[in-house]
Amino acid sequence: MGLRYEPIKQGFPMSKSNILLHEIEEQPSVIRNLLDYEMENIRSITRSFQGKFKYILIAARGSSDNAARYAQYLFGAYNKIQVALATPSLFTLYKRPPSLNEALVIGISQSGQSPDIIEVLKEAKKQGRPTLCITNEFNSKLTKTADEVIKLHARKEKAIAATKTYTASLVALALISCCLDNDPKRLKQLMMVPSWISQTINSLKNLISLTQRYRYMEHCVVIGRGFNYATAFEIALKLKELTKVFCEPYSSADFLHGPIATIGKGVPVIIVAPGGKVKRDIENILIKLRTLGAETIIISNNTPLLLKGRFLLPFPKSADEWLSPIIAIVPGQLFARQLAIEKSLNPDNPIGLTKVTETY
Amino acid sequence: MGLRYEPIKQGFPMSKSNILLHEIEEQPSVIRNLLDYEMENIRSITRSFQGKFKYILIAARGSSDNAARYAQYLFGAYNKIQVALATPSLFTLYKRPPSLNEALVIGISQSGQSPDIIEVLKEAKKQGRPTLCITNEFNSKLTKTADEVIKLHARKEKAIAATKTYTASLVALALISCCLDNDPKRLKQLMMVPSWISQTINSLKNLISLTQRYRYMEHCVVIGRGFNYATAFEIALKLKELTKVFCEPYSSADFLHGPIATIGKGVPVIIVAPGGKVKRDIENILIKLRTLGAETIIISNNTPLLLKGRFLLPFPKSADEWLSPIIAIVPGQLFARQLAIEKSLNPDNPIGLTKVTETY
Repeated sequence: MGLRYEPIKQGFPMSKSNILLHEIEEQPSVIRNLLDYEMENIRSITRSFQGKFKYILIAARGSSDNAARYAQYLFGAYNKIQVALATPSLFTLYKRPPSLNEALVIGISQSGQSPDIIEVLKEAKKQGRPTLCITNEFNSKLTKTADEVIKLHARKEKAIAATKTYTASLVALALISCCLDNDPKRLKQLMMVPSWISQTINSLKNLISLTQRYRYMEHCVVIGRGFNYATAFEIALKLKELTKVFCEPYSSADFLHGPIATIGKGVPVIIVAPGGKVKRDIENILIKLRTLGAETIIISNNTPLLLKGRFLLPFPKSADEWLSPIIAIVPGQLFARQLAIEKSLNPDNPIGLTKVTETY
Repeated sequence: MGLRYEPIKQGFPMSKSNILLHEIEEQPSVIRNLLDYEMENIRSITRSFQGKFKYILIAARGSSDNAARYAQYLFGAYNKIQVALATPSLFTLYKRPPSLNEALVIGISQSGQSPDIIEVLKEAKKQGRPTLCITNEFNSKLTKTADEVIKLHARKEKAIAATKTYTASLVALALISCCLDNDPKRLKQLMMVPSWISQTINSLKNLISLTQRYRYMEHCVVIGRGFNYATAFEIALKLKELTKVFCEPYSSADFLHGPIATIGKGVPVIIVAPGGKVKRDIENILIKLRTLGAETIIISNNTPLLLKGRFLLPFPKSADEWLSPIIAIVPGQLFARQLAIEKSLNPDNPIGLTKVTETY
């Protein structure tokens, strides 16, 4: 009798608590609510601000700051508006705020509590500038300071790492952009986002356990460009928060101006690679990374690009590039959560972090 | 007869070529030249731009982009001007540039050759906006595009990693700031920078060999705030370029919004900690880092702050906070160069990098 091999059942790690997973899965319904409840409010806000500013200044921290990065491309490309990111320490530590003449000032904060963001909006009001805040907490110091408020309708976010408030912030910004240029075609595309996220989550259900390949990954790089520059930053932040992996985000252009020197054989590089205007740029980076022997993890809705990677995280083809950041972050969220579990860390409650961080 | 111990002479690593070291040491003379030759030019440029813009947009990559970060704090705090950083892909890949109405547009590029930076300035001109470039190459496409040119007078930079063109860019920006607000006291402080850099280099001559402690460091974090947010980015870039260490820069505030989760026992954290308005903020971070057991490397001109670190890199006390980034980068440059040597890498010619990087 020959040897009989029986597959051994692996002790697959399971997370005992599923708060973060639940909030990731909640995203389609949160976005549906936001689109339903805020459309009219945002229409009236954009009308009231029209003609009152020449550029936008956004104050935000953490995931909200990554949403602000999305706004730079979104408002730039579709509304021809230049977006600047605020430097809060000028307003708080130095007490030497710049003149905000010609600016519309937007604060983004899930909790509405970070004192530095509130300070920027207070100064804007003092200078007579129009102000807006995007938040998940209706009764906060931030909402009391801003002229206008957009609520995220994300219900309470219980996990430490932001997921649903991040995608909801992107959708709020996308809604502002659509209302500013009054384009029904883009609005129709935006309505598709909840179902694209659902499809993405479903299609990754079986795939995500393969994340265990990265159990001993200690550092990595995340690359995104244009609209998905924000996605690279947000994936890097999720990985740092949930898995303690040292993880630095870059645009493909900045990456070539020096940081590419850190890439050697086997170094994991996550690439956010939607089809669209950035495709050729991303293809060039992939050729360079292959030469260097990097391990490539690709998040894409473009089959030829996906097939160039070692580990593939797909999202629906139909998502247009300007909306792809709202979808492409979801594989990143699931990857970071699964990797936390593989590393025996609690994804719902990372050690050393608190939900509300108050900085000056 | 007892055993006699004789000290064994260690095989201290030496670099065979000293191009980078020479350029680091050249910085005081480069800055003296720049202050001598460009003062009048900058005075006349600032006069010609006065009243023609409401905010500044800067396009730059790599080290020059870090100089742009310094400009955000410098022009914000001393000239009350809001500074935005450009998103070049909107101008190149997407061909959807935002309206630059009310902006003064500045391009910073050592080589004057990066196509994306040139593209931003071309668009600015097309929109009738005033443009300025800061560069080390007088005959480049960038100088031909810009209305006004500030030359860095840094002679040819031969090492791949930028050092003297970085500090010269900061000095050019500082000169603009002084000329804009016509403050002779600040101008007098600025004149001290060359001698402060010389003092810093001299005082580190013996100390820097202790860098070998970090021979096996694979990743680290660099923290700076306000004026020295730029310094944190530039030190991280030098470390990536020269030593292949994964190294992420943060402001102390952003660091608390998530990334602090990556810090465990022994993780090296470089902190740029001048005295001044950021002192209390940096002290708070140091307390947190001590609790987490991080290894702290402190670059400071403040004795109480220095004494809180494990490895100390001092610079002259008299350097005022607004000028400290031009001095505080020097210990970072020397640290990164020495660490490259300790790791048996060639600091003059890092593998995989070229002097001019052309990105779109």
